[in-house]
Amino acid sequence: MAKRISRSTFIMDNPPSVHSYAAVVGKKEGEGPLGKYFDKVCEDAYFGQKTWEQAESELVRITLKKALEKGNLSEKDINYLFAGDLINQCTSTSYGLRDFGIPLLCVYGACSTMSETLLLSSLMTDSNIGGYVAAVTSSHFCSAERQFRFPLSYGGVCTPTAQWTCTASGCCIVKPHSNAPYIKAATIGKIVDLGVTDANNMGAAMAPAAAHVIKTHLEDTKKSPEDFDLIVTGDLGRVGGTLLIELLAKEGISIEKNYKDCGTMIFDYEKQDVHAGGSGCGCSASVLCGYLLDKVKSGEYKNILFCATGALMSTTITQQGESIPSISHAVHISSDGDIEKGWK
Amino acid sequence: MAKRISRSTFIMDNPPSVHSYAAVVGKKEGEGPLGKYFDKVCEDAYFGQKTWEQAESELVRITLKKALEKGNLSEKDINYLFAGDLINQCTSTSYGLRDFGIPLLCVYGACSTMSETLLLSSLMTDSNIGGYVAAVTSSHFCSAERQFRFPLSYGGVCTPTAQWTCTASGCCIVKPHSNAPYIKAATIGKIVDLGVTDANNMGAAMAPAAAHVIKTHLEDTKKSPEDFDLIVTGDLGRVGGTLLIELLAKEGISIEKNYKDCGTMIFDYEKQDVHAGGSGCGCSASVLCGYLLDKVKSGEYKNILFCATGALMSTTITQQGESIPSISHAVHISSDGDIEKGWK
Repeated sequence: MAKRISRSTFIMDNPPSVHSYAAVVGKKEGEGPLGKYFDKVCEDAYFGQKTWEQAESELVRITLKKALEKGNLSEKDINYLFAGDLINQCTSTSYGLRDFGIPLLCVYGACSTMSETLLLSSLMTDSNIGGYVAAVTSSHFCSAERQFRFPLSYGGVCTPTAQWTCTASGCCIVKPHSNAPYIKAATIGKIVDLGVTDANNMGAAMAPAAAHVIKTHLEDTKKSPEDFDLIVTGDLGRVGGTLLIELLAKEGISIEKNYKDCGTMIFDYEKQDVHAGGSGCGCSASVLCGYLLDKVKSGEYKNILFCATGALMSTTITQQGESIPSISHAVHISSDGDIEKGWK
Repeated sequence: MAKRISRSTFIMDNPPSVHSYAAVVGKKEGEGPLGKYFDKVCEDAYFGQKTWEQAESELVRITLKKALEKGNLSEKDINYLFAGDLINQCTSTSYGLRDFGIPLLCVYGACSTMSETLLLSSLMTDSNIGGYVAAVTSSHFCSAERQFRFPLSYGGVCTPTAQWTCTASGCCIVKPHSNAPYIKAATIGKIVDLGVTDANNMGAAMAPAAAHVIKTHLEDTKKSPEDFDLIVTGDLGRVGGTLLIELLAKEGISIEKNYKDCGTMIFDYEKQDVHAGGSGCGCSASVLCGYLLDKVKSGEYKNILFCATGALMSTTITQQGESIPSISHAVHISSDGDIEKGWK
């Protein structure tokens, strides 16, 4: 059974496994450095649909189907789903998943959604009330761009600190303790808002939330950054990633040597004109499910700390001059399924 | 420990308690039949703020503070929160809660949010990974109206099937087994979409989802409607409520005698001009936390089945002609803390 060892940090007593996982992305993401690792790259940005919102729903549908197929499962094998996305009222999730008939707990964590859904799926499964539970999320450049910024046809120019919303989706199917990769521990993050008001610099807004959850997780589990082969944030991008390293250094925590950010991993900064890097719920989800989990499964990475990061603003509220509250949740994923020494 | 007795129905082994709860509403809700039961009625629709979105955030803040105060707790006593609302990107939740410093798992369930947050808080607490966990949600007529329908100053006329979004918020603080009211069981619902496309008739869109979760819960727990003093839905209103009774009757389940809907309870249909009834996340949340939980605590109601209902559309997607997927989750709340016979 999962144990709560501090206010909101949990150790899995019998670490649940990620049974199967899948990542599906758009053309641009497929052309990036991780292109060959994704399960499917769709050339058609509309995914055969008529609107951008329908396209994103189709992307979610394809990704869940792929994860089921890779795990040799049908929708009836999944007890329930944790899922969410960036679009108003999480419609990519509800329209994408409505035909599966799987009980749904929809969450909203902005780009932290992959951490939030994976954390909840793992806690439920390690508490014997999960079984096979899926965690899925998505984002689409075109649905996000027109919702959060400008109509696509306006051709708006981005600032250098802006990030490129990934057309991407990732899905993990969690099951009771069985095979690598394993979920070993997790920390629920809290909202941190240091007053950044620039919606074109979300990396800066989110870095303090990531710093908080990483510090809390390390302290609560009595670990140091060296205990992880990789500490990976959701989508702080180049600006936020640099800030995160600085913020943690001030707290005496040096992550520089083994830190990466999904937003910088997914695109080639020199060639792909993505400003400060990738973003969107699907960014960290596809990097996790396309690239990172394979590396953990093979043992190339023994331990990673996955911290998807979310900026919790809306266009209405930033237009009112409000700053951007952010959040990040941490999930420790391992190639080794033993419970950590000292926690037995 | 909570037990999963079917795909997504759970029995609490050691039923968690609702330690304290609070409901705060606006002027119109305060003038309704339940007015005297709410903890606070705010005459100022702006709640002392400058915008409707800030007003709703302030409403959430006041409600959580009230629940803490009634329970003689401080924010440090709460391990984490489940919360969510209707506004794009759930900003009422994130801005309303950001200053508390409590770890947050934000959910999106539209008007089913009170069921979803209470279900998750109870499952976590009965699995020994909760402790004190809060479940909170809100809605505000003015922020919802301008987001989902028309600018307020436009003075749009509503159809008779339309519902009135309540300015209301409710908060439950769940803790391990102690005193009534107790959470005894719960069922996670699935998306049901029978093709209703009229966003001004959400009751009709949501009734099939409520019917599904009530039927599933009764079957899974081997109960009949008579085992509950009250089966109460979130906000189907008059139209959806009548449909629900018909839908369940076709399945051989008669709930007519002990069925009510929060959307019809909160307003006086004859006097308050609310069309088909109240709606919004805060409708069922405030009726639960203002009225129903007191009746369960006192033993006047021994068992209630609380099923908040959510319509999962957005304005963008209904403008594209899509139908409205809906969801409802069921939570069995009782004055008696014993585990149900037959489940020991």
